[in-house]
Amino acid sequence: MMGNLFAGIPQPDPLSPGLSDAGTPGWAGPSLGGGDEMFDTLAAMAGARVERIVSTGQRSPPGFWYDQDWDEFVLLVSGAAVLDIAGHDSPRLLQPGDWVHLPAHTRHRVLWTPADRPTVWLAVHGAPVGAEAVRGEAGR
Amino acid sequence: MMGNLFAGIPQPDPLSPGLSDAGTPGWAGPSLGGGDEMFDTLAAMAGARVERIVSTGQRSPPGFWYDQDWDEFVLLVSGAAVLDIAGHDSPRLLQPGDWVHLPAHTRHRVLWTPADRPTVWLAVHGAPVGAEAVRGEAGR
Repeated sequence: MMGNLFAGIPQPDPLSPGLSDAGTPGWAGPSLGGGDEMFDTLAAMAGARVERIVSTGQRSPPGFWYDQDWDEFVLLVSGAAVLDIAGHDSPRLLQPGDWVHLPAHTRHRVLWTPADRPTVWLAVHGAPVGAEAVRGEAGR
Repeated sequence: MMGNLFAGIPQPDPLSPGLSDAGTPGWAGPSLGGGDEMFDTLAAMAGARVERIVSTGQRSPPGFWYDQDWDEFVLLVSGAAVLDIAGHDSPRLLQPGDWVHLPAHTRHRVLWTPADRPTVWLAVHGAPVGAEAVRGEAGR
């Protein structure tokens, strides 16, 4: 199984500024073309799941934090994002090549992604840690 | 734990063409600066290990095939490589953004990486499959 990480990414539509901020569950914020964040599982293997995430302006809703039962590794491949990690002094701008290892139950949220171009992430979701083994698509 | 995938990569030294083809165990071929391939574990998590690999001209020795007890996912982030997978019709050129999921015991080898610039891979090694659970640094 092979592919290219940049395949099938819709380009922003200049005629559709997509300023709807309707607040879909889990995500809010303008997204060019009015689309949602894209999640694609590239590889499901023993121990881990590798996922491509494409963001175009989405951000975590106010007050929302990811709190996962498994470790996650994210690589920002293209675009940009501002990531907030609970307990860190200040949110951090991620640029291409930047990676973050988020051990299980490291609370984190995405404060910003640019709306005018796709931001492509590679995410690795490890095996659940502890008794409550729940895997979800909402992981970051 | 954070970092940038392109940090700490030695730049090719134009005064040292590095044409020694001495055939070190596991790897042979010219490498700029005379160095070996770089392997850095970025994240060790339950279920998976995420690794950066930096190649500068290395290739698998003739007749050598990787045959691993765990799934591997590789993303070619920068540079280029020619990958040969047993049973496939012909070797394939990998360019930035190209990814490959290699299920356990998918025999594969690297035929070529460019010697004049670094090729950066992100590799995800899953959990061993089957009885003979062996993890190694030589995985690709």
